[in-house]
Amino acid sequence: MPHSENVFRPQADLGIGDDCALVSVPAGMQLAVSADTLVCGVHFPESTSPFDIGYKALAVNLSDLAAMGATPAWFTLCVTLQDQSEQWVEAFCDGMASLTRIHPILLIGGDTTRGPLSVSVQVMGLIPVGEALTRAGAQDGDDIYVSGCIGEAALGLARVLKASENQSSSQYDPMLDRLNRPTPRVALGLALRSVAHACIDVSDGLLADLNHILHSSGAGARLDLDAIPVADGASTMQSITAGDDYELCFAAPAHRRDTVNELARALSLPITRIGVITAQPGMVDQNNHPLTPTGYTHF
Amino acid sequence: MPHSENVFRPQADLGIGDDCALVSVPAGMQLAVSADTLVCGVHFPESTSPFDIGYKALAVNLSDLAAMGATPAWFTLCVTLQDQSEQWVEAFCDGMASLTRIHPILLIGGDTTRGPLSVSVQVMGLIPVGEALTRAGAQDGDDIYVSGCIGEAALGLARVLKASENQSSSQYDPMLDRLNRPTPRVALGLALRSVAHACIDVSDGLLADLNHILHSSGAGARLDLDAIPVADGASTMQSITAGDDYELCFAAPAHRRDTVNELARALSLPITRIGVITAQPGMVDQNNHPLTPTGYTHF
Repeated sequence: MPHSENVFRPQADLGIGDDCALVSVPAGMQLAVSADTLVCGVHFPESTSPFDIGYKALAVNLSDLAAMGATPAWFTLCVTLQDQSEQWVEAFCDGMASLTRIHPILLIGGDTTRGPLSVSVQVMGLIPVGEALTRAGAQDGDDIYVSGCIGEAALGLARVLKASENQSSSQYDPMLDRLNRPTPRVALGLALRSVAHACIDVSDGLLADLNHILHSSGAGARLDLDAIPVADGASTMQSITAGDDYELCFAAPAHRRDTVNELARALSLPITRIGVITAQPGMVDQNNHPLTPTGYTHF
Repeated sequence: MPHSENVFRPQADLGIGDDCALVSVPAGMQLAVSADTLVCGVHFPESTSPFDIGYKALAVNLSDLAAMGATPAWFTLCVTLQDQSEQWVEAFCDGMASLTRIHPILLIGGDTTRGPLSVSVQVMGLIPVGEALTRAGAQDGDDIYVSGCIGEAALGLARVLKASENQSSSQYDPMLDRLNRPTPRVALGLALRSVAHACIDVSDGLLADLNHILHSSGAGARLDLDAIPVADGASTMQSITAGDDYELCFAAPAHRRDTVNELARALSLPITRIGVITAQPGMVDQNNHPLTPTGYTHF
């Protein structure tokens, strides 16, 4: 079941080449829609390879579908190019295509324009009516989980920013890989439909994104900072206030712990319990010290 | 019937504020999807008012829905801002909102980023299964029509480019209005569903866009150049090779002429018969002189 998205093959009734594409949404399904833009020099360093730009632009949007528990279906692509070569465009498309082979999703339209480099992707996914994982719905006593490891993308970005031009960049760096090719947790999102009370993807930083769940759910959280799985070489506070992880943070009732652990095994993906939802608003650590969404505050 | 789109009120099951928006596509309807980007200095002059930028960004996308015969339903907006003021953003939103009051369509998501000014809009519309107006389907003997008047936007652009900074821009100029606030022919598109064999909106120039219909339909056309309604002060050749008109060009069988004329009256919109579809590929004028999609060629 966790891998069920890999057998879905999205189709279009009419694809690229007319004024609009035409697609059919099956009966009983809702359409989940999200859009994100990546601007050169803002969302990726200028030195980023075109393959990675294509990969990441689609990955961050697939991550939004994952956070809703939606099956990827279709996307449109609006790309603005300055003076990129044909080879650049080919590598960009290769990066995007390599991700669509992992998560089948069909390009159905868009626009190519001239100007400063940026990429806007809009994704559409399918989800049975009423089964979407929203940010609201977390309840007092729910466990809080996070998938994977937090803070690796931030370490990767720090290395890119520090790297001088004459340094060799040929050495493989897993942190750079995490920055440039984030892994959208699509299968986890699908499997969480009937398990989680609330879910979000970690794009702005774990504390900030968890805070969105708390705000939408009218709840608070007590986090066990020592439990949070953070990148080797980074502090917990660095990791949970940095962004670009694209892991899922979710709340699930305590009686579903076995299910969550089974999911982790089935997906070969660490899923760590990092705290509990509280009725009392606000975030505190294991010692009841307040935590603010943008950093750690000791009073 | 032509104004039926004005009673449709699009709704979202979940609007802006979560990882995705959720919408429901009614049974028996297809989703028509299109996306366009407008880049400052490329698709609009830097001097364009924020109100007009907002208006035009949505209008050109609504025009794509119109050309498919789709009822506007939802859109996402990805806007990249450099250093625009709060007042700028407010006027931009006002421009967009003023158009949504004419053509109800619901903003359900998007992204705001920092960088060189550009606006990407993706629209979604609804259309009964099998009733979409595509570019294919034009048949030998069909009449070719165009709505409104061609070439006015190009005249407007020429005036903007010629205008020196010390000239007063306070005087109302209908050509500038046509350039900055194109009128998407949504009601006409809806009414043409059961009438037209093929349809496209005129964004790249009448000849180039009609050529898309011919290519998709495997047909040719004989145009009566003298019949084409062109802007006062522009030549026919200037007008049919210039873009940005956002009128509809369509092919309909000869026995529906009365219906088309009735539509023109009901919509208070000129609809002019400008030629016929031919089995012989290529475009010719009334004297059988070849026409190329980018200009007029005498042999």
